[in-house]
Amino acid sequence: MSTAKSATAAPPDILRAAALELVVTDLEASRNFYHDVLGLLITFENAEEIHLRAFEEYLHHSLVLRKGPAAAVRRISYRVRSPRDLDAAERYFGELGVRVERRAKGSTRGLGELVHVQDPLGFPLEFFCEAEHVERYTQRYDAFGAATLLRLDHFNILTPDIPAARQYLLDLNFKVSEEIRDELGTTFASWMYRKPSVHDIALTQGDGPRLHHFAFNVQERHEILHICDHLGALRQSERIERGPGRHGVSNAFYLYMRDPDGHRVEVFTANYYTGDPDNPVKIWSVHDNQRRSWWGHSIIPSWYTEASGVLNLDDELQPVATHQGSIELKATVGADGY
Amino acid sequence: MSTAKSATAAPPDILRAAALELVVTDLEASRNFYHDVLGLLITFENAEEIHLRAFEEYLHHSLVLRKGPAAAVRRISYRVRSPRDLDAAERYFGELGVRVERRAKGSTRGLGELVHVQDPLGFPLEFFCEAEHVERYTQRYDAFGAATLLRLDHFNILTPDIPAARQYLLDLNFKVSEEIRDELGTTFASWMYRKPSVHDIALTQGDGPRLHHFAFNVQERHEILHICDHLGALRQSERIERGPGRHGVSNAFYLYMRDPDGHRVEVFTANYYTGDPDNPVKIWSVHDNQRRSWWGHSIIPSWYTEASGVLNLDDELQPVATHQGSIELKATVGADGY
Amino acid sequence: MSTAKSATAAPPDILRAAALELVVTDLEASRNFYHDVLGLLITFENAEEIHLRAFEEYLHHSLVLRKGPAAAVRRISYRVRSPRDLDAAERYFGELGVRVERRAKGSTRGLGELVHVQDPLGFPLEFFCEAEHVERYTQRYDAFGAATLLRLDHFNILTPDIPAARQYLLDLNFKVSEEIRDELGTTFASWMYRKPSVHDIALTQGDGPRLHHFAFNVQERHEILHICDHLGALRQSERIERGPGRHGVSNAFYLYMRDPDGHRVEVFTANYYTGDPDNPVKIWSVHDNQRRSWWGHSIIPSWYTEASGVLNLDDELQPVATHQGSIELKATVGADGY
Amino acid sequence: MSTAKSATAAPPDILRAAALELVVTDLEASRNFYHDVLGLLITFENAEEIHLRAFEEYLHHSLVLRKGPAAAVRRISYRVRSPRDLDAAERYFGELGVRVERRAKGSTRGLGELVHVQDPLGFPLEFFCEAEHVERYTQRYDAFGAATLLRLDHFNILTPDIPAARQYLLDLNFKVSEEIRDELGTTFASWMYRKPSVHDIALTQGDGPRLHHFAFNVQERHEILHICDHLGALRQSERIERGPGRHGVSNAFYLYMRDPDGHRVEVFTANYYTGDPDNPVKIWSVHDNQRRSWWGHSIIPSWYTEASGVLNLDDELQPVATHQGSIELKATVGADGY
Repeated sequence: MSTAKSATAAPPDILRAAALELVVTDLEASRNFYHDVLGLLITFENAEEIHLRAFEEYLHHSLVLRKGPAAAVRRISYRVRSPRDLDAAERYFGELGVRVERRAKGSTRGLGELVHVQDPLGFPLEFFCEAEHVERYTQRYDAFGAATLLRLDHFNILTPDIPAARQYLLDLNFKVSEEIRDELGTTFASWMYRKPSVHDIALTQGDGPRLHHFAFNVQERHEILHICDHLGALRQSERIERGPGRHGVSNAFYLYMRDPDGHRVEVFTANYYTGDPDNPVKIWSVHDNQRRSWWGHSIIPSWYTEASGVLNLDDELQPVATHQGSIELKATVGADGY
Repeated sequence: MSTAKSATAAPPDILRAAALELVVTDLEASRNFYHDVLGLLITFENAEEIHLRAFEEYLHHSLVLRKGPAAAVRRISYRVRSPRDLDAAERYFGELGVRVERRAKGSTRGLGELVHVQDPLGFPLEFFCEAEHVERYTQRYDAFGAATLLRLDHFNILTPDIPAARQYLLDLNFKVSEEIRDELGTTFASWMYRKPSVHDIALTQGDGPRLHHFAFNVQERHEILHICDHLGALRQSERIERGPGRHGVSNAFYLYMRDPDGHRVEVFTANYYTGDPDNPVKIWSVHDNQRRSWWGHSIIPSWYTEASGVLNLDDELQPVATHQGSIELKATVGADGY
Repeated sequence: MSTAKSATAAPPDILRAAALELVVTDLEASRNFYHDVLGLLITFENAEEIHLRAFEEYLHHSLVLRKGPAAAVRRISYRVRSPRDLDAAERYFGELGVRVERRAKGSTRGLGELVHVQDPLGFPLEFFCEAEHVERYTQRYDAFGAATLLRLDHFNILTPDIPAARQYLLDLNFKVSEEIRDELGTTFASWMYRKPSVHDIALTQGDGPRLHHFAFNVQERHEILHICDHLGALRQSERIERGPGRHGVSNAFYLYMRDPDGHRVEVFTANYYTGDPDNPVKIWSVHDNQRRSWWGHSIIPSWYTEASGVLNLDDELQPVATHQGSIELKATVGADGY
Repeated sequence: MSTAKSATAAPPDILRAAALELVVTDLEASRNFYHDVLGLLITFENAEEIHLRAFEEYLHHSLVLRKGPAAAVRRISYRVRSPRDLDAAERYFGELGVRVERRAKGSTRGLGELVHVQDPLGFPLEFFCEAEHVERYTQRYDAFGAATLLRLDHFNILTPDIPAARQYLLDLNFKVSEEIRDELGTTFASWMYRKPSVHDIALTQGDGPRLHHFAFNVQERHEILHICDHLGALRQSERIERGPGRHGVSNAFYLYMRDPDGHRVEVFTANYYTGDPDNPVKIWSVHDNQRRSWWGHSIIPSWYTEASGVLNLDDELQPVATHQGSIELKATVGADGY
């Protein structure tokens, strides 16, 4: 992305982070984790793929698990406001000079017409507008567990060049809610949103394109504690990678887990409203030790270094570009972006 | 009980309120309520009876549901410290002149030798020491629901003559934690304990012998809220009779439900420690409108007037003696005891 | 409003329900309730007025208490996206034929230029764009109480003609999230939003213009329970009018209180996201007894009948028009709209 | 304690862990931590000492902070059932051959007559029966914070010879609830109780006599999370040493903090009932990685190695005996006892 093009076309009106497709090597193990343990609802499943959603979601899925030979991220999906925004996406990314493909309704189960893009950062994006409606479980308390995931909220991606990535997202009309910077003004990590929350996507400095994590929210903190207790009872405490804890950045109460393929999923609460145009951008110093953990906890190294590779539109694993920043800064900054 | 005898024998060393046997008319409906909705664990079941326990309990059962022609309470069970206390119970109640029966191990499934008593208040008591141990689910978080009942805590009984009933329990070495009285010193309701909690049994002024309710505790208040949400989702909100709310007396956060036969069950949290000998007795004025509900809520009339009849040792429904106190006082005092 | 005009001008782009000004008769008593008990932060106060905000708010105030001779609602404030939307509001309401006044920056303390309107329903609206920024207390956990109000969320108004009021708000580009209707398609109550939540304003059938309540949210349910316990400890349980409980409509866990002047304030959690254009509208039958209370609780009559009068732009109390619907329906439907 | 005497006299009837006196070097800093941050109530204070209690406690104090030149533990206090148990304590410890002193009422402010003992493990014990009663804040919700400490619950001590210490406590009629052992039957840590909870005292293998920590309980887990958030907001996250987390042993949800002098205090919830004579003893393998942390978290080294020295009855710091067990075992076992 060093010689980034810019587009003259208007960008699509992106509503929000909407869905994710993961390639998993053991579909049954993943089903156990996401459905039996985390309690996500299954909209559809067969021997090759499982479509899941959280309790307040009424679209067909927010997570697709697809059986494959090697763990990877196959699709990161955004919903756009109208069918015209699919046209806009096609034009916009076309002008950016990246690969763009229009796909017919149903090419992803449950969704309408699609635009697939290999974005300038290397991520395989999916834009959709129409989606099949399914039952919203908001009040299906008879199906609630001791922890109940409500909505897919955001993605966190690793990318080597934060300023370029940040500009790319600003051009797409994402706004910044919080950032980590140093005293020279260098930005190490950005939280950016379309829906009026802290983020739909966070940018973290690191080797990329890789997906650091995706996140679902719950209503209350005890639900996150229960997930830990539950994993303990299953003697799967190794699924817990980091947390529970409180982020300085974003104020989220978080838990990071690794699924059976090592994909990282966060469950968190809560968000704050960012929908007014003058919503203050919160800047954190890279030297503030509570930026990563409000409680001052140190962070397990795997959380800095490990992440999920992503596929291109031909389902081939994308090569990873190495972050070229100072090692010293990396040591200090490390997980700031997370 | 107007001409109550007293005993010279030492009373049995009662550990705590331990179990309850209910006659229910539709075993499947009761199973659905106590197991499927409230989440009690089933230790044993057949076509005639279901034995259930809560998650921190390791004895065979704390609740027995027995199929029968008419709803009633068949047994109220206390655990005693040692086998010698069964002998003590036999002697003690023998001296009181009430019916006492020694029964062999296994006459109640899961329990050892028993002493059954028709107590001076008319209640069918069961004393046991030995009981079969089963798995304690304290850390079986994989089996936890959004509300998880932990322990049977207490009984609340209706009896017409509170001073007599109170003295009977004091003689059995129960201690008083809280009481409702008027300015003349009349006691309208007493909370009395053996284990160091607010109560194992509460005495409420009213037509008796009847069981007002029995109670299980949970750890946190949101669990009680979930039970309400759950019943709402099942379109069984009529199971909710009173609450959720906070008692003045006892400080419990409570919910009262009616099971499919109308038996009243409370789920509550929390208790406070009363184990020091000088634990202050808290006296509430019968004129304090927050004694019933710390939040000042008014109380549904059924909660004052309805309760479960009890059987005698021949499984015949006990007649109910009418409370002879002033109607006026009853109107004012009413649910104070609850 | 029977001969409602419509406007050809574009309506202002309203961001959200933003603030409220109440006339209170005893400023100290109100300060005690909103600041000492509910914990709202004070941005400014003098002998005549107190400006308060909740913990996640960074604008000058969301609640103004103004000393006056009789309790009333003086202003209901919406924030608009840009200064141009003030012009739009001026034109739009001008075309509707209602009284419109442009007021200079500072005429309401802490806000920029204003448009004041006596809207077609009779409510004294305030539109603002600019506002003074103050400290956002999102992470000021050192100042958190056992209950911490986070944001003003919505208004609920009483108005006699729901279809007309609903159309008026649709014209202002409010969207419907949930409604109560009968089998003939009559709408009895509507929840309508601009920000992607269940509502910024709810319409309730009744004598109006009156304000039924305004609402702040908290993060977790135990905070609402604490408010009740706190009022109990202060021997002010009479402040609690209804709840805590769960609404069927909106799924909110609620508590309604009456402030020292009888103004009704709700504290609730939580909201669900409604920001996608195809967000399903949830229709409740007026005959569904869980629509008002998911737990089937009956509702105290005052909650149906009492509400706050509103002032016109000359600070005179507005006369109230009586709802002309069938008494029978009213009896059944009553509080549905709430 | 290698040549431990045994006593023929009956041991005193100990009710429970009751209080603690800490020497602190900066009384104001400690006051800030225990009163302003943790919210303990102050019963008495002057320039030399502060007496604090938790919200459900009605005795004069459960924590005394005394100004002194070096941080240490001055007294560990147990309450006994009756004045006769003071005599029993005097005889019993006299027979054990350790230093015993009878002290007059008031020699510790707020308490009656005392027996002070330098116990065989080297700890300065205080036994009392009478104590001044003060207001119990159980329902003083107007004074509740977002976290409200309810009762002092237990002590955890470091001592080199666990089998000897365990036998000493068994002789005092403490019972074991849970233990960590290896496959050879060696006990590495024991949780022992008088009141029917998991423990009044826990024994941890290590250099001693030292106090590892003392613990207060709260009702719900979110209160513990708030303490962390609060410390974060005060920029005192360094007070948080370990947690929040869930113990395998005891099932407690815990947080360990270090006060301004480095004394370690735990806040936790919840306890389970152990009051029946056949309460199952839970044995954990020293090789079970969830025994220390149910969630599998690793433990900060300071938590293993640092602890508070204790004074003798002449207020001189007690020398510490080194644990003689295998270094290898120590590395593996380490914090098991905690």
